[in-house]
Amino acid sequence: MDRHDIALIRFGGVNRALAQIVLDRGDDLAVDLGFTLRIVAITDLRLGSLMQADGIDLAAVFAMDADDTFAGWRGGTAVPQNTYVIRNTTADIVVEATFTNPLDGEPGVSHVRAALEAGKSVVTTNKGPVALAAAELNRIASAHGAFFAYEGSVMSGTPVLRFAAETLKGLRVGEVQGILNGTSNYVLGRMEAGLSLDAAVAEAQARGYAEADPTADIGGSDVQLKVVILANEILGADITPADVDRQGITGVTPEDIARAAAERSRWKLIGSARRDASGAVVASVRPVALPADHALAGISGATNAVSFGTDLLGTVTVSGPGAGRIETAYALLSDIIAIDAKQRTRQAVVA
Amino acid sequence: MDRHDIALIRFGGVNRALAQIVLDRGDDLAVDLGFTLRIVAITDLRLGSLMQADGIDLAAVFAMDADDTFAGWRGGTAVPQNTYVIRNTTADIVVEATFTNPLDGEPGVSHVRAALEAGKSVVTTNKGPVALAAAELNRIASAHGAFFAYEGSVMSGTPVLRFAAETLKGLRVGEVQGILNGTSNYVLGRMEAGLSLDAAVAEAQARGYAEADPTADIGGSDVQLKVVILANEILGADITPADVDRQGITGVTPEDIARAAAERSRWKLIGSARRDASGAVVASVRPVALPADHALAGISGATNAVSFGTDLLGTVTVSGPGAGRIETAYALLSDIIAIDAKQRTRQAVVA
Repeated sequence: MDRHDIALIRFGGVNRALAQIVLDRGDDLAVDLGFTLRIVAITDLRLGSLMQADGIDLAAVFAMDADDTFAGWRGGTAVPQNTYVIRNTTADIVVEATFTNPLDGEPGVSHVRAALEAGKSVVTTNKGPVALAAAELNRIASAHGAFFAYEGSVMSGTPVLRFAAETLKGLRVGEVQGILNGTSNYVLGRMEAGLSLDAAVAEAQARGYAEADPTADIGGSDVQLKVVILANEILGADITPADVDRQGITGVTPEDIARAAAERSRWKLIGSARRDASGAVVASVRPVALPADHALAGISGATNAVSFGTDLLGTVTVSGPGAGRIETAYALLSDIIAIDAKQRTRQAVVA
Repeated sequence: MDRHDIALIRFGGVNRALAQIVLDRGDDLAVDLGFTLRIVAITDLRLGSLMQADGIDLAAVFAMDADDTFAGWRGGTAVPQNTYVIRNTTADIVVEATFTNPLDGEPGVSHVRAALEAGKSVVTTNKGPVALAAAELNRIASAHGAFFAYEGSVMSGTPVLRFAAETLKGLRVGEVQGILNGTSNYVLGRMEAGLSLDAAVAEAQARGYAEADPTADIGGSDVQLKVVILANEILGADITPADVDRQGITGVTPEDIARAAAERSRWKLIGSARRDASGAVVASVRPVALPADHALAGISGATNAVSFGTDLLGTVTVSGPGAGRIETAYALLSDIIAIDAKQRTRQAVVA
């Protein structure tokens, strides 16, 4: 049976969830998918670095005390040597899960580049490298016979990029628009129930939807990165965050909400990109009062959704979770599954 | 460039729309998809039969007068010889588009069987053969190196079967539930606006959503066939329509609608199938008052939707058109695209 050896860069919530899936369900997955998964490297700012080409004992990693590091482990050190591990790991797939840096995508971009240049495929949910450098990174992947996959950079494990690529073939997609931030959608829903913006944000934080600093959520910059990704991937654009007009939900007032409700409309933070008559891609993030029969009007709570405007099929919409540790770990798993399939096709063609 | 030769069995609205797509956009599609499409046979109860191995002039077919037949055309006759054409056409893909027969699936089942036994792949939107005989027909396809594809048997061109197969890999899907009949969803929505059931049905007929005899729509038997297809395809069940408890919307009263609205709920005709604790598949069609935050509660008008209940990702939903000539023709095109991809993979493996 085929096997993929995996390196986990940053051992935070999402990569821990992926490791847990491999530990708990690896045998079942092997039966379903026809390949096994083995974690051969882990790096983490707090834990340090660990490389074991014969496979890391994940149960031992999960049993570590809160202040333990990989110092003293075979192949381990207390120093987090991300780039060294990416270059030297025996892994064929590197999972990049460092934080999203919306300014220059670092250190994610450098991590992805280093892996691809070494011929290792990369899967990530890190919006930074995808929104800011996908074209360059895809060229590097192609030149080195590797793959770069990032389904989870938009809507966690809910299929969006793969939905467009695999199930809308033969259609012309002229527009994408979505509810791409669960916190702001939750907040708008709670404002419909009578809460102030501040009270709704506080409630979202208490429920774990919003970050301690919710600026990127309610200010729209999180959605801005996702719109760049959707425009470039699905409409074939070549835009950057600066090309996306951005307005968050902080200007939506209780009066706006009440007025919309009286007309059976709902305020939603909509990220959108479309080709205009000249062929240029126009992209924006802004609050919109959607009529009740709009495909995105019924998306409630922290759920996310994307609608695709197509020529032959009209509007098609996918909705599902947009965040969550396990949901995002599934995005990584789905990318690994897709890479395995591409490698098999390539091997078959070569052979 | 690869080419697929196509036989169209019944030249009704959907196959006419497919032929129009081939005529208008064949060159564009060839660039996008890497293969060309050529119609080499057409059969129709009114027009008769036409076989031209070098490709039929579609513009001439569309220019026919209302009472013309294929008599006198090269390779043509006024007699609709479906089975003869299916067996003898030079087509490698047969498009079966006769009417849905919910009792025994005929003549669809015999048409599909004849094509597959001759090694020709079949695409169809005919629910009869899929709901009643998919397992047998898939075995025949496999034994003869052919493919049988039927995305459009549920929700026209909106990807449902392919969504599950291509984008949810590695997940366990334990439940599917959907709004699978546009007429009944439209009718329930108009009852929310104050219309009686009869008035809403009449309006749906005037708008072209409902058939002259709306019994299969509002009585739930259309949804029943689709639930069988979803249960067998997605949950791996082996059920027949008789295994699906069925209740239509004729028992939903204005009082039910008003009571639900007061609780911010909406009545929907829900087709569902799930694996219970024992592993058995339980399937039903019945009206359900959904709370406002349910994934299917916001599906309005004639739109259809299916929600998939998964282990790692929770609930994921696809919504879009459930009917329409062009939308259904796209389902056939998407099946042809999928068959082409499978043939290429197989050829690569064999070579």
